[in-house]
Amino acid sequence: MIHRPPASEEDFLNLIDRHFATAHPHMRLGRGDDCVRLACPQDMVLSTDLFLEDVHFRRSYFSPADIGHKALAVNISDIAGMGCRPLGFSLGLVIPDDPTLTTAFWNDLLGGMGALAHTHDIPLTGGDLSRGPYLGFSVTVWGTPGPTGRVLTRNTCRPGDAILACGPIGLARAGLFALEELGPEAIALVPHAIRAHLRPTPRVADGLALADIPGVHGAMDLSDGLARDLARLTGPGLGADLTLTESALHPDLIAHCTRTGQPALPFAVLGGEDYALIATAAPDSVPDILARIPQATRIGTVAATPGITVNGQPFDHTGFDHFATHE
Amino acid sequence: MIHRPPASEEDFLNLIDRHFATAHPHMRLGRGDDCVRLACPQDMVLSTDLFLEDVHFRRSYFSPADIGHKALAVNISDIAGMGCRPLGFSLGLVIPDDPTLTTAFWNDLLGGMGALAHTHDIPLTGGDLSRGPYLGFSVTVWGTPGPTGRVLTRNTCRPGDAILACGPIGLARAGLFALEELGPEAIALVPHAIRAHLRPTPRVADGLALADIPGVHGAMDLSDGLARDLARLTGPGLGADLTLTESALHPDLIAHCTRTGQPALPFAVLGGEDYALIATAAPDSVPDILARIPQATRIGTVAATPGITVNGQPFDHTGFDHFATHE
Repeated sequence: MIHRPPASEEDFLNLIDRHFATAHPHMRLGRGDDCVRLACPQDMVLSTDLFLEDVHFRRSYFSPADIGHKALAVNISDIAGMGCRPLGFSLGLVIPDDPTLTTAFWNDLLGGMGALAHTHDIPLTGGDLSRGPYLGFSVTVWGTPGPTGRVLTRNTCRPGDAILACGPIGLARAGLFALEELGPEAIALVPHAIRAHLRPTPRVADGLALADIPGVHGAMDLSDGLARDLARLTGPGLGADLTLTESALHPDLIAHCTRTGQPALPFAVLGGEDYALIATAAPDSVPDILARIPQATRIGTVAATPGITVNGQPFDHTGFDHFATHE
Repeated sequence: MIHRPPASEEDFLNLIDRHFATAHPHMRLGRGDDCVRLACPQDMVLSTDLFLEDVHFRRSYFSPADIGHKALAVNISDIAGMGCRPLGFSLGLVIPDDPTLTTAFWNDLLGGMGALAHTHDIPLTGGDLSRGPYLGFSVTVWGTPGPTGRVLTRNTCRPGDAILACGPIGLARAGLFALEELGPEAIALVPHAIRAHLRPTPRVADGLALADIPGVHGAMDLSDGLARDLARLTGPGLGADLTLTESALHPDLIAHCTRTGQPALPFAVLGGEDYALIATAAPDSVPDILARIPQATRIGTVAATPGITVNGQPFDHTGFDHFATHE
């Protein structure tokens, strides 16, 4: 039976119960009623993200466990981007009537999602299953600030603030492009880039640490690449002067750009789906930040005028609008 | 431009801002960051539901405003089914690249959703937009108990408890079947049934009133029809003896069944998508319930053994499993 799809909604729910705890201190009443009942802190943050087949992932090179992991990871990353920790999540699941989506497939997928939920000690509180024409996930995740009660937002910096990044820049984009070009064979070529795309790590500990440092002014998670997200971090009227060297980029990104004959720095700045955190901070707090978050690096300075420069040169590419109609 | 789709994500977000307030006491920080920041009560209930084109609605007979209304209504109904009131909601929106989904279409759709959100004074806190092959909504809604702090759940009744319903039984199913058979022309034939299917009313006030009456033991919202949902309300090991007369059914349901030549009572019991509330209560509290909620009716009694009887006859149909593969 493991080689056939779950036969009924009940079978599917039993499969979910196998991978996600039915009790948790955050749940006063667990899955199976009209709603979950939650024991909540007064201060919460919440986000909903979609993760759709052939828009956000492909079954041709994502393993089932990768799909389950990333569907949840990109959502937890939004909590990390606020400097908070996650508390729980709910799941809307669209399932096509496809014989290859077997019980074994779902075991692996829910196992990947469940492992990440376990890492962060967050319960799946419920959700909805529906038939639909393709595989899709809608995850809503919520969380709460750390002990200081501080939440990190955008639009909170001044010209001259340092811009910092926690996590590699552009590496996931190298993985995506290599996978799109070569399929699973890309894994042998640039394994870290592939992993950055398939298995991003939500940087909850980094976000909590940033929120704990008074000199940090704001933060967000890097989902659309520096070229698009920096203006969102600084807010309108401000810009960013980036100082980046190729030696600071991941070797897999360099390898991908060398193989495909393109300059590495613009590729990294266009980025996308890195789920690194980017933050702004008072310049004099940078040594403290780098001491407390060794994986953080300073990548630039907030500028008094809009736009991005890279090593003094204007950067004009704007990245990709996933929504716009390209005629 | 109103006759063309929104040209960019920014245009779409501006459209959302036109229909949904950007500030609300429940939101400490509104839309536009990685997460919304919420001011929360300690006791919350939360639910996620999908609302997908050609699974849950059809554009051929739902107006844009109907789609927007129902996508949110079925979710608020889950809060009502817990005897709670809604506080806020988030939205995952899948939008196909379809030239007929114009700015005018979205204005009407978001207008329908916004009007219902306004009725319940709940903010749209954020969410996600994505391209996808068909129109789809994932709504997550949360709420909190009324002044007594009581939450109504399932599996909380005893044999001999009264079963009550707030709202028509089976009426929305008559509307669905008439629409599927005749399209929009069905409106002239059975307008109340059509409205029950296209524009269900979440019964928040009824749910809060039920939660306020100590003799009420449990409740849920009726989404899959009595035939499937009664066993969920009573819990395993128990059943329901229903006492229903055709005179208690809505005239539009009778008209539909007469026209299509089928008995009305089984049709009503199979039901589906009524979003009425069903509740169990101590028999001696029924007069109080009927006095305080005049639209409530007693429809039966909890039985000590599983299964449903209707006016003493076993009822064997089980309704439709939206998930199962029908080979």
